[in-house]
Amino acid sequence: MTGKLYGLGVGPGDPELLTLKAHRILTTVPVVAYPATADGGSVARAIVAGFLQPTQIEVPIVLPFSPRESAAAGYDRGAAEIAAHLAAGRDVAVLCEGEPMLYGSFMYLLNRLGDRFPTELVPGISSTLAAADVAQVPLTYRQDVLTILPATLDRPLLRDRLAQTDAAVIIKLGRHFEKVRSVLDELGLTGRSLYIERATLPQQQIRTIDQVDPAAVPYWSLILIPSHSQPGA
Amino acid sequence: MTGKLYGLGVGPGDPELLTLKAHRILTTVPVVAYPATADGGSVARAIVAGFLQPTQIEVPIVLPFSPRESAAAGYDRGAAEIAAHLAAGRDVAVLCEGEPMLYGSFMYLLNRLGDRFPTELVPGISSTLAAADVAQVPLTYRQDVLTILPATLDRPLLRDRLAQTDAAVIIKLGRHFEKVRSVLDELGLTGRSLYIERATLPQQQIRTIDQVDPAAVPYWSLILIPSHSQPGA
Repeated sequence: MTGKLYGLGVGPGDPELLTLKAHRILTTVPVVAYPATADGGSVARAIVAGFLQPTQIEVPIVLPFSPRESAAAGYDRGAAEIAAHLAAGRDVAVLCEGEPMLYGSFMYLLNRLGDRFPTELVPGISSTLAAADVAQVPLTYRQDVLTILPATLDRPLLRDRLAQTDAAVIIKLGRHFEKVRSVLDELGLTGRSLYIERATLPQQQIRTIDQVDPAAVPYWSLILIPSHSQPGA
Repeated sequence: MTGKLYGLGVGPGDPELLTLKAHRILTTVPVVAYPATADGGSVARAIVAGFLQPTQIEVPIVLPFSPRESAAAGYDRGAAEIAAHLAAGRDVAVLCEGEPMLYGSFMYLLNRLGDRFPTELVPGISSTLAAADVAQVPLTYRQDVLTILPATLDRPLLRDRLAQTDAAVIIKLGRHFEKVRSVLDELGLTGRSLYIERATLPQQQIRTIDQVDPAAVPYWSLILIPSHSQPGA
């Protein structure tokens, strides 16, 4: 009997935003894997650190951010190590920030291992939507269209997509903040947009766009453009 | 001291997909409110039925589906009843299917009560994203744009929005399935689209589009159009 591969969404940052199911699996599997940087740091592991047991085997999947070739090599190495545990009959839970199937690192392991081992995915709270909860701002009503898009898009594409939606969440801001702000200004969206950094964590920041220092925008931040629609009820 | 108003996302259907936080609040508040039909049925209450305590006071918010005026009147009555509990110092948890700020019923109570009482929102797993987990299909990679939109849009708008996104989730299908299918056919998207009904519940169905009986499509169903991008790692 081979082990089972779990892709666990661990949510946006607050450990209490794990689901009951993710918590149950996380605390009972013998092996826990997670993306990590070369120096051992791991956002996903940090979220669930309080739930990990000393008896659990940990498998860091080391992913240098660049060059891109190294990410593939990192996933290859991680997948090989995980496959060895699965082949030996040990269940493996792979941690994934937010929601695994939405820009998630687990997709690269699913592509490598999903055909060979029984696999189950456990949804996680996505920061893209949790940001609306912490800001207490309704995102979409009734017939509204929501667009989730990365700030890394080039300016014309970003402009086009934002011009044709009722509500949006712009993720992966980092050094792209100035470009995004100029698009928001051009479309007249700046006033109703909100900047949110590290939603649901103690360091969480919620600011209007004019209060943001472009030089201090981390990758883990987003801009929320809530719908302008009338509630209608 | 007034009570606190909680908007609790209870997720897509599987009770184990409540967050630890929603579970903690749900099982400790004295008053639990939820949208309900005139005959007392409530999707949100059904999800958490196993967690409710006999000592908790329940407040159904009765919402006839039509005419629209009645929905506003229903929210008005529900808000008044909830406000009375809050004014008496009792915390109230309002249940909301999926994620409260995404087409959620709680938004109509937030609009009525959020200014008058301390309020906290607890994110829930949205079926729009959980559908990708149960289908084990990655939604978006890297630079992809995701669009979430209701099938109730008119055909030209639906077509335009779908033509300009990398991935999409079309919700609230019901009697709009035929219209959506014809748009998918026109755009060449039918082959990679998946129909998902009642994701994460025991009755869950996952089908290719050609396997769907248009006459038997419930409101609680959606179509997933995953990104066509290459993983890249």
